[in-house]
Amino acid sequence: MKTLVTGGAGCIGSDLAAALLARGSQVVVVDNLSSGKIEHIEPLRPHSNFTFIEGELDHFGFVLSAMKGIDFVYHLAANPDVKYVEGDPTDKDLSQNTLCTYNVLEAMRRQGVRRLGFSSTSAVYGISPLQPIPENAFFPQPISLYGATKLGCEALISAFRNLFDFQCWIFRFANIVGSKVRKKGRTVIGDFISRLQENPRKLRILGNGEQAKSYLLSSECVDAMLFLVEHARDPLNVYNLGCDDALQVTRIADLVVRAMGLNNVEYEFTGGEGGWPGDVPRFRLDVTKLNRLGWKAQHNSEQAVEMAIQSTLEQMTARACRP
Amino acid sequence: MKTLVTGGAGCIGSDLAAALLARGSQVVVVDNLSSGKIEHIEPLRPHSNFTFIEGELDHFGFVLSAMKGIDFVYHLAANPDVKYVEGDPTDKDLSQNTLCTYNVLEAMRRQGVRRLGFSSTSAVYGISPLQPIPENAFFPQPISLYGATKLGCEALISAFRNLFDFQCWIFRFANIVGSKVRKKGRTVIGDFISRLQENPRKLRILGNGEQAKSYLLSSECVDAMLFLVEHARDPLNVYNLGCDDALQVTRIADLVVRAMGLNNVEYEFTGGEGGWPGDVPRFRLDVTKLNRLGWKAQHNSEQAVEMAIQSTLEQMTARACRP
Repeated sequence: MKTLVTGGAGCIGSDLAAALLARGSQVVVVDNLSSGKIEHIEPLRPHSNFTFIEGELDHFGFVLSAMKGIDFVYHLAANPDVKYVEGDPTDKDLSQNTLCTYNVLEAMRRQGVRRLGFSSTSAVYGISPLQPIPENAFFPQPISLYGATKLGCEALISAFRNLFDFQCWIFRFANIVGSKVRKKGRTVIGDFISRLQENPRKLRILGNGEQAKSYLLSSECVDAMLFLVEHARDPLNVYNLGCDDALQVTRIADLVVRAMGLNNVEYEFTGGEGGWPGDVPRFRLDVTKLNRLGWKAQHNSEQAVEMAIQSTLEQMTARACRP
Repeated sequence: MKTLVTGGAGCIGSDLAAALLARGSQVVVVDNLSSGKIEHIEPLRPHSNFTFIEGELDHFGFVLSAMKGIDFVYHLAANPDVKYVEGDPTDKDLSQNTLCTYNVLEAMRRQGVRRLGFSSTSAVYGISPLQPIPENAFFPQPISLYGATKLGCEALISAFRNLFDFQCWIFRFANIVGSKVRKKGRTVIGDFISRLQENPRKLRILGNGEQAKSYLLSSECVDAMLFLVEHARDPLNVYNLGCDDALQVTRIADLVVRAMGLNNVEYEFTGGEGGWPGDVPRFRLDVTKLNRLGWKAQHNSEQAVEMAIQSTLEQMTARACRP
């Protein structure tokens, strides 16, 4: 069994690659290291079943050659930056999500690879008329370029599945948190820690602080993906991955402040419903379908975030102590 | 009021352009004439409010310049060939639908154009769990590259609408029929007429003949679009366009045979549920939302098809008689 993990040097991808190796699979990681980091896969490199190929998924010839001899693809590579900031190019998500996913699908088709797991997102739903959000109860209207282009990916996967007899698993992720330190500003935990390290008296919080979202640990996310590929047997399997509660952003700030041993931190809110244009301010995922199949998250959103804060701080300390 | 109609030399686009001119709008038609025809807009060219620009929507600089000074965009240009045939490139729909739609949206954003009507399709739904199909009751899973990439367009429109304060109308078309003669094989009416002209004794019908779909006259489709832009006032307006019945393909064959004055034509079925890979064999559209707003199709599917057969035959005869 030879598994390709695109974005395999990312936070989730490297956890997945490690889990696959532990299960005896041969693993090929493809990553362009734009947001993935070589240090995430460093511990895997001595493994004889592990291969790392640096390359760009927007280069079709490269994808085609990397796909040779593969049995299963986990396509996790994507533009990880959900935020759109005024002045950003508006085609970044289109290129890195939809077009690269097309390249992966077409390379699979040509190389006879027929099984695909895909990291989609709760952002495909947009503002849901239902909470918690079930997988299949309304027509989605994404409000971010990230969510829109991921929906474009899902649609292509659905068509390829039908036309070329693929079997696919679409995982709609909650917010995934973990121990790996991400770029400043990219995730709420890393953002809060960095800002408090710079100024331990004041914390800027995007939005009005009332945003509340669903969180899942990266290790649990990986566990759920592997479980689904083993147990969900439809031609196209679409599942929300998360737990069914939500955690408010000011509560996350409280947890970070406490974990860093700080006191009397003043919160400064930028205001507005969402944290940025395209932010879905409040959501919970309906994970009944996943639970019924036999998988349930072991930690709720608050526990997941608390553990992620702890391990992020430990990693940072360890790194700061390195000679 | 200056309106841009992309794909304005197509069957529906040219009917729309004529209707807009009749209402006093300035009309700019953009078309690359790949499937649109210059003869469709010939009658409009003497009109002082009419401009035709030949060009490619995949050339962003061209789209940007055509967008200057526009107040409203009807984006109808697309790959009109819903069928995927083995050996076809798999990225034709992605390029001509999703990427060109992105170019239109981005050009609108840069030029300050904020109102868009978009020709989507019932193919975005895939195989519906509900009949007739309502606009917003389940998460779509398209089964064709055409439907998938149109869903990708809808998603991009939804995100641009939210991020850049657009107002948009998404029209999910039934099968649109009309008097304009299309390429052989592209629509069922044109296909049957051409085949019967070649061999009046035998007619090849794709699939098992039990496919049944919803049909709407091009002139009524145009009328519904104009009605919706006038009466639907949400930031994002999504409507099925059609009537609520369906017509079986063998019945269409009977109507064509009768209209051509033929007898004892043998039907030969290629077999299978759908007519081609990615074909949705049976659907009806729920048009309650459109009806409630005050618009109802004047002809049902059978009447629409019958009128389209008549006018197609008349056009062909007229053309055959031309010196």
